[in-house]
Amino acid sequence: MSDWMKNVRDVQPYVPGEQPKCENVIKLNTNENPYPPAPGVQEIINQANTDSLRLYPDPEASVLVNALAEYHGVSTESVFVGVGSDDVLAMAFLTFFNSDKPILFPDITYSFYDVWAGLFKIPYEKPALKGDFTINIEDYMKPCGGIVIANPNAPTSIYEPVNNIERIIAAHPDAVVIVDEAYVDFGAESVLPLVNKYDNLLVVRTYSKSRSLAGLRIGYAVGNEALINALNSVKLSYNSYTMNMPSLIMGTEAIKDEAYFRDTLHKIVTTREHVKAELSGMGFSVLDSKTNFLFAKHESISAKYIFEELRKENIYVRYFNKPRIDNYLRITIGTDDEMAVFLDTVKKIKKSVDI
Amino acid sequence: MSDWMKNVRDVQPYVPGEQPKCENVIKLNTNENPYPPAPGVQEIINQANTDSLRLYPDPEASVLVNALAEYHGVSTESVFVGVGSDDVLAMAFLTFFNSDKPILFPDITYSFYDVWAGLFKIPYEKPALKGDFTINIEDYMKPCGGIVIANPNAPTSIYEPVNNIERIIAAHPDAVVIVDEAYVDFGAESVLPLVNKYDNLLVVRTYSKSRSLAGLRIGYAVGNEALINALNSVKLSYNSYTMNMPSLIMGTEAIKDEAYFRDTLHKIVTTREHVKAELSGMGFSVLDSKTNFLFAKHESISAKYIFEELRKENIYVRYFNKPRIDNYLRITIGTDDEMAVFLDTVKKIKKSVDI
Repeated sequence: MSDWMKNVRDVQPYVPGEQPKCENVIKLNTNENPYPPAPGVQEIINQANTDSLRLYPDPEASVLVNALAEYHGVSTESVFVGVGSDDVLAMAFLTFFNSDKPILFPDITYSFYDVWAGLFKIPYEKPALKGDFTINIEDYMKPCGGIVIANPNAPTSIYEPVNNIERIIAAHPDAVVIVDEAYVDFGAESVLPLVNKYDNLLVVRTYSKSRSLAGLRIGYAVGNEALINALNSVKLSYNSYTMNMPSLIMGTEAIKDEAYFRDTLHKIVTTREHVKAELSGMGFSVLDSKTNFLFAKHESISAKYIFEELRKENIYVRYFNKPRIDNYLRITIGTDDEMAVFLDTVKKIKKSVDI
Repeated sequence: MSDWMKNVRDVQPYVPGEQPKCENVIKLNTNENPYPPAPGVQEIINQANTDSLRLYPDPEASVLVNALAEYHGVSTESVFVGVGSDDVLAMAFLTFFNSDKPILFPDITYSFYDVWAGLFKIPYEKPALKGDFTINIEDYMKPCGGIVIANPNAPTSIYEPVNNIERIIAAHPDAVVIVDEAYVDFGAESVLPLVNKYDNLLVVRTYSKSRSLAGLRIGYAVGNEALINALNSVKLSYNSYTMNMPSLIMGTEAIKDEAYFRDTLHKIVTTREHVKAELSGMGFSVLDSKTNFLFAKHESISAKYIFEELRKENIYVRYFNKPRIDNYLRITIGTDDEMAVFLDTVKKIKKSVDI
């Protein structure tokens, strides 16, 4: 071991879902959108002049921040943007979670929360979700250094009513509560209107799911102006220019086409409910999803087995080898054609086991 | 003050050079390249299909890492990429500077080093540069938690010979030495060949200056495979996907056109030497620059006055109101036409004072 290694930060990196390098894969493992981004995004990039790339982008990302503020009906001082919601969340952990008291988040949730806490040496506790994977609100009523709740939750897909989340926010004026709404557009109610009522609420969103722009890396947060100001100070102490020009231009364009957005969401939700019914008919328990994925387990066939058999057929879903959820599959909703192939393949796997 | 504010991280953000929002400005204040990126960058973006943006980018940024490794003749495991060299440097501070001993960097250098040390609570000391703004090598021979040297240095523009830097690297097998070579392409010698000799050397580069792609946000580091592996672990604990698809595609294309690159560098260096001679003829002391900017002071007119007068004429240069350098101007090298207007305006300012 080299001498300098003793001062290297000790971390346990997050493991993202596999990005297959071969073609012809039905990719239902990282909750991407099966439909392309709004057509205006293609039009705007066709007009791009790369000469302008010789200059630094606007460090305030004003064009994008202004568009998001207008879209959500909040002030521009209430919006923060980052390189995907992961960047926004990491920056928020670094900015707000500096108490000696532990921060709180559920035992089953987005597995990057543990990783950021580890990276920044933030103490944390993980109250267990109830048997039905809902939150026990009382677990979040004790003194703490902050709270993070994904709502709807991942990988469970289920949604906690806004009034439950509000109880938690109201109980902690001395701690920031982050509500990670990566999947909210697929049918859940948002806490976003509460940012005017509670100055300790930070709502985080992403372009990677409902906006079909995972490849562009855009996330944002909405909150009280003092919260956003604190976030921007830390961001400007890390990297002046996080959002590159293509992100600023395409990210601004992407939210203009509300009709396309609603149409895409409607298609995904319709497909989701169809797939849920079909899986239920084949002996799966499928949680009630408000996201673009389903969380399901079969009554007799192990999730790991189905996962592996699907993979042999070039159908990728997500399997987590973790306590309490190691018999579930997380299945992203693709196009109707993709889901038909998926359902057919599951049927064949089931049949091969039944024999 | 809200209750949650007591746990907000205390930072002193970096202040980037002004990005003017009006047109018709001669912008010589942030060391951008006056020439567009390689023509291939425009061609590749014209072919872009935004449908692919619905998917996450490759978290390993393989296409870009591979291209850079080949360009520099190193292994792919020796290259790390980030959202500008600021992202790379911030990540390197977080990864490597976890000693109780202070890290060392010059009193006059890139002013983001203090900011990152503050953000991550890293103790630091700033040995003073000598009167001629060169490094006193002996200052860097004591036990420390790490070292950062910008070479050529900013805002001074001057270059420290490689053998001096090598003495520092060789003296600290127990500490990582970061050499920030943002400006090295404009005529300095690189320490990059030393990465095979010293496993504690991290060389950082950027696309923002010599590659004309400040708007794309691409930086990278080259070092021993163990160093790069440690950096990647911390990066994957922060954000799985930092490089968006436009950066991967255009960043890979940009380094293919060596002839265009050399031609652009030659033009900037030629203009620089001409401007230096002209300024010297007008009573300026101009440091010997190996960068795309000049650091200059006038024998009788204050830098602050010239800065303000230039600004009235929509010519932006950089002025630092800091000890030891508060009578200098940092002047980015623009096109010949821009520099002709700059020189004419300086002449007029000088004449108005002489009267």
